Amino acid sequence: MNLVASPARLSTASSTFEAEFKARLHWSAQDDAAIEQRVAGILADVRERGDAAVLEYTNRFDGLGAASMQALELTQSELKAAFESLPAAQRDALQAAAARVRSYHEAQKKANGESWSYRDEDGTLLGQKVTPLDRVGIYVPGGKAAYPSSVLMNAIPAHVAGVGEIIMVVPTPQGAKNPLVLAAAFVAGVTRAFTIGGAQAVAALAYGTQSMAGVDKITGPGNAYVAAAKRRAFGTVGIDMIAGPSEILVLADGSTPADWVAMDLFSQAEHDELAQSILLCPDAAYIDAVQREIDRLLPEMPRQEIIAKSLTGRGALIHTRSMEEACTLSNRIAPEHLEVSSREPHRWEPLLKHAGAIFLGAYTSESLGDYCAGPNHVLPTSGTARFSSPLGVYDFQKRSSLIEVSEAGAQILGKIAAELAYGEGLQAHARAAEMRLK
Amino acid sequence: MNLVASPARLSTASSTFEAEFKARLHWSAQDDAAIEQRVAGILADVRERGDAAVLEYTNRFDGLGAASMQALELTQSELKAAFESLPAAQRDALQAAAARVRSYHEAQKKANGESWSYRDEDGTLLGQKVTPLDRVGIYVPGGKAAYPSSVLMNAIPAHVAGVGEIIMVVPTPQGAKNPLVLAAAFVAGVTRAFTIGGAQAVAALAYGTQSMAGVDKITGPGNAYVAAAKRRAFGTVGIDMIAGPSEILVLADGSTPADWVAMDLFSQAEHDELAQSILLCPDAAYIDAVQREIDRLLPEMPRQEIIAKSLTGRGALIHTRSMEEACTLSNRIAPEHLEVSSREPHRWEPLLKHAGAIFLGAYTSESLGDYCAGPNHVLPTSGTARFSSPLGVYDFQKRSSLIEVSEAGAQILGKIAAELAYGEGLQAHARAAEMRLK
Repeated sequence: MNLVASPARLSTASSTFEAEFKARLHWSAQDDAAIEQRVAGILADVRERGDAAVLEYTNRFDGLGAASMQALELTQSELKAAFESLPAAQRDALQAAAARVRSYHEAQKKANGESWSYRDEDGTLLGQKVTPLDRVGIYVPGGKAAYPSSVLMNAIPAHVAGVGEIIMVVPTPQGAKNPLVLAAAFVAGVTRAFTIGGAQAVAALAYGTQSMAGVDKITGPGNAYVAAAKRRAFGTVGIDMIAGPSEILVLADGSTPADWVAMDLFSQAEHDELAQSILLCPDAAYIDAVQREIDRLLPEMPRQEIIAKSLTGRGALIHTRSMEEACTLSNRIAPEHLEVSSREPHRWEPLLKHAGAIFLGAYTSESLGDYCAGPNHVLPTSGTARFSSPLGVYDFQKRSSLIEVSEAGAQILGKIAAELAYGEGLQAHARAAEMRLK
Repeated sequence: MNLVASPARLSTASSTFEAEFKARLHWSAQDDAAIEQRVAGILADVRERGDAAVLEYTNRFDGLGAASMQALELTQSELKAAFESLPAAQRDALQAAAARVRSYHEAQKKANGESWSYRDEDGTLLGQKVTPLDRVGIYVPGGKAAYPSSVLMNAIPAHVAGVGEIIMVVPTPQGAKNPLVLAAAFVAGVTRAFTIGGAQAVAALAYGTQSMAGVDKITGPGNAYVAAAKRRAFGTVGIDMIAGPSEILVLADGSTPADWVAMDLFSQAEHDELAQSILLCPDAAYIDAVQREIDRLLPEMPRQEIIAKSLTGRGALIHTRSMEEACTLSNRIAPEHLEVSSREPHRWEPLLKHAGAIFLGAYTSESLGDYCAGPNHVLPTSGTARFSSPLGVYDFQKRSSLIEVSEAGAQILGKIAAELAYGEGLQAHARAAEMRLK
């Protein structure tokens, strides 16, 4: 087998660039009516029958023979035992990663997540109270894409926010439990954990069952069924984003060893054939060098088939006129992961408006951020960084406005409010304000 | 006509309370398959044909005879003229309200919406960059429910966030323009405004047309078609919440004049027959007094029919054992508006976990908050305050993580990341980290 990874070679100077660029970027989720209908049925059934329905679907879809929901709950001692069964190096790495993720999210809470208030000159108090959600659900995929790091990235910000109860669900097809996932749940401080998955797990979290109280928000990635179930449950509960394929964009000035950049492109491509790796660089010779490293390194990679398909199908090496132009193009893409692989990352960072996470300088490989630098690895995909943000403490908090109008303040505000309320034809609003006038 | 407003009288001491309480609270949006299908068709058509489709739908649904999209754009001088045509008292009230709303949202941005970063002991930089959205769309309903205050409440936080372009859409059925809405757009500093509405307006904002660039996020309330269109456009663009009927909960210790509380209950009920007004109070005699004031004041209200239907159909006066129990019940309801009509509002406030906005003390009528106290009046409804927040500056900002790992930091983080990446079977991730090791 002689695999080839051939990302598209584009140049912004070409007259066909715009069309080629758009064609490469395009990705859209397929709406699947059959999945939608099955998911709607499962949600309604779990809402109606609770535990019994969850148990039936779980036994059927995951090939289990559990007798009750209780048999599907993982005890704290089981989670602890999983942690203790790991090699010391893995235990240490998990704990070190958890500590860094925790400390970053604590800084985030302090910077952007505290209550505040002030009084104006009339003695009127205005502010906002920031409080944690009571109870959240974390969906963790089972099987191939079971990532313990995702357990940390979802549970730790919830913990730091002060969420009272964190319920993890993770399917165990054919009963296979992933000890790293269970260990991560132990390290992250998950409150309860169930070996259930799919739409039935989302339904149990959203509506609650006899053995599980319903949650206020569900986060975490999943397959098409899970995504459809989350979308439908939205409104009953909050949800995080619906994630598309993962992406990396490397903005290179040519100063980083080409094999580092090639491996960074691989590290995205190895996730999934639909993952997207893009290099933007004003130096054509450097782009050639990266392609040579891609060719050289590919045969060493255990996941070379996925990498080759992803890079050939969706990857691109784009020659730009300048770093400035590369920054402009990056803003159009609004990538999930953006590496600024440059000697002068702080020169370019201010030009970068839209990205889930920005990795500055040659030493900051995306994979360090994926696991342990501290910031969250759950990031907006498919250009949604234009309007959305990394998962964070703020996703596990909500705000309530605080208003205490003083008697003096009511005299001024009452007249303004009454004037506008009459203008809108809402007389009770106006009268309520006027009643507070002396 | 002899209208009666008879909110349900419940008591937490009754054995039937739990069932009655749940039945009263229950509200759920109807999924309407016919609306869904029509909206899907309109969205696809506007995406395909742009201006031509928007123009056709607008002329058809709003009874207009516009020749081009250009004829549907409101110029800045038209907005200004609308403002100047208003009586001085209305002009002053609009400007005073706008100034207070602006100043509150500036405080909000300062408290919770600034970029931050720190360096750890290895010199690794971690942080988050907070940036405004480039372009947002604000949907303003036309006709009966045209609220100029909503223009302020949507546009001003976007402005304070630093959004580059704010596009307002407002339908004008039969060509009737609401001068207060146009004036509010002028005062709030809307960039462009179009007299289009419905699903076609949402589609134009989401996908862009020949004469309107697509936006990054759409906020603002609308009818069932607008809500369905926003839900479908979600993912292509961000959206704010999908609002249900408005609600007020008054927590009273009996110290506020009973007519004030009756009028506050009216001010919610007059919005809509589905609106919900609830009083929680440990003092049965006070509840009687409020009911007497309801009976006395109702005939004076121009919107008495709506008020009577809303209070009788969905309202409740609930006798609780104590203020503490009232707080617990309030948390279960998670109301949109929560008035703490008490002599000791700061005694109860810490017990209140879930609410869109909390109005403290007898002078703080909800209507003051609706118009001009400063905080936003776009608030989570139907119990979603359990997991969501008032519209705010943060809805018009997004965050990008910043990571700059130092050479020294990469030596430590690289080992942790590689250990975990190998554990997850992602070798390129591991190798990318290892390449940075000396």
